[in-house]
Amino acid sequence: MEKSRSDIPLYEGERIDDLLTQNLHIIQSREVFSFSMDAVLLARFASVPARGKVLDLCTGNGVIPILLSTRTKATIEGVEIQERLAKMAERSVEMNGLQDRIIIHNADLKNYHEVAGHGMYDAVTVNPPYAALTGSDIKANQYEAIARHEIHCTLEDVVKACGKLVKQGGKVSMVHRPHRLADILTLMRQYRIEPKRVRFVHPRAGMEANMVLVEGIRDAKPEMRIMPPLIVYNDQGKYGDEFMEIYYGKPGGEA
Amino acid sequence: MEKSRSDIPLYEGERIDDLLTQNLHIIQSREVFSFSMDAVLLARFASVPARGKVLDLCTGNGVIPILLSTRTKATIEGVEIQERLAKMAERSVEMNGLQDRIIIHNADLKNYHEVAGHGMYDAVTVNPPYAALTGSDIKANQYEAIARHEIHCTLEDVVKACGKLVKQGGKVSMVHRPHRLADILTLMRQYRIEPKRVRFVHPRAGMEANMVLVEGIRDAKPEMRIMPPLIVYNDQGKYGDEFMEIYYGKPGGEA
Repeated sequence: MEKSRSDIPLYEGERIDDLLTQNLHIIQSREVFSFSMDAVLLARFASVPARGKVLDLCTGNGVIPILLSTRTKATIEGVEIQERLAKMAERSVEMNGLQDRIIIHNADLKNYHEVAGHGMYDAVTVNPPYAALTGSDIKANQYEAIARHEIHCTLEDVVKACGKLVKQGGKVSMVHRPHRLADILTLMRQYRIEPKRVRFVHPRAGMEANMVLVEGIRDAKPEMRIMPPLIVYNDQGKYGDEFMEIYYGKPGGEA
Repeated sequence: MEKSRSDIPLYEGERIDDLLTQNLHIIQSREVFSFSMDAVLLARFASVPARGKVLDLCTGNGVIPILLSTRTKATIEGVEIQERLAKMAERSVEMNGLQDRIIIHNADLKNYHEVAGHGMYDAVTVNPPYAALTGSDIKANQYEAIARHEIHCTLEDVVKACGKLVKQGGKVSMVHRPHRLADILTLMRQYRIEPKRVRFVHPRAGMEANMVLVEGIRDAKPEMRIMPPLIVYNDQGKYGDEFMEIYYGKPGGEA
């Protein structure tokens, strides 16, 4: 049952945002967590089975499971290490009436296979913290710091967990920064997720990529495909048609 | 001294083609070897030092050393395992009067470090055979088969040789097919060439990449950049402006 949005408690600083997809909404907070373009693009890019079990690691406020629910009848689980965020995600799931299809776990991805078992998921998605722990530029806000920096998990922890949790032939999709691509591909191979499909996102046609979407398949044969580049802004400085279609499901408009 | 082109012996089936760059020409043969777009794009993409020593492996008819001679005062060596091709390259070098700057060796890259020494080159370029040895689709023509298929060297042989021949901090640039990207990046790391700069070539804006240019630096710190995509044909089916500028050094025109 979808609850009236007024039935869902909101804490200080929280707001409800429209996901602009099938009347879905999400609880966000500038202080605690707001989803990024990266999460939306991953939710559109990832291959998901029509049914079965899907897992989203580092789920944050649950934006990826909620968006994925429009593309699959699978059960979707989200794992989030921060209790404050996991509860926020749970409230968003309930607000959208998705509690029979999306389950949020407040857990550490590093040992989640001990709870969930090995190789139980048809697909795993993850939008992990991007920033290495350099000590200098850690965000002051604790919630954001954990979401953005490799405080509780490194890229290797994330890929290792994906390798344990996905079933043979199952798909693992990740969004990350292109400067880590060599790390991502070598770690995927190390944990038996063969990289199969990569898409780069460029802010403009003449600029370097600032985002990469990668999909691998557990124990697949090597053979990578590089998808057409996704260009965010067109020459007029507005969102391009393809970006608009992917992001909002509608043709080009104002940036 | 540049020889008059009529002084250079041509064998049956050979022709002289204009490289459309600084009046350079090259000997080609449909039966034996003709360079591809890939070689030209690599010669434009590769970082070369102003002076020093540059090495081109799998040099074929010498197209990459000849094109690179317009971008550097370095001594350029080309290594080619097929004697017939090495001699063809030598004649092209002589025809362009470049014999004091380009030296062609008829040698096997797998043991070329025994001749040249370890870590002696500031930059190494290579356009290796792309096709794995599947046994089914090997080209009937012996010369072309060796140039296109991994008969005398595998991708690992190539990357290993690059790692031995390039100096610390020196650059290795390669052109290959995107479906081998995970292999290329993991092998580069294995042989201590850190992948730093990658550019994908797409036939058209909405199509998957069919070529990849990769540059790594020996013993560098990890951090990759994905350059803007290079799109060959524009929406009108003609060569795009940027492609024309890179390929021919002039603005867009007929395909």
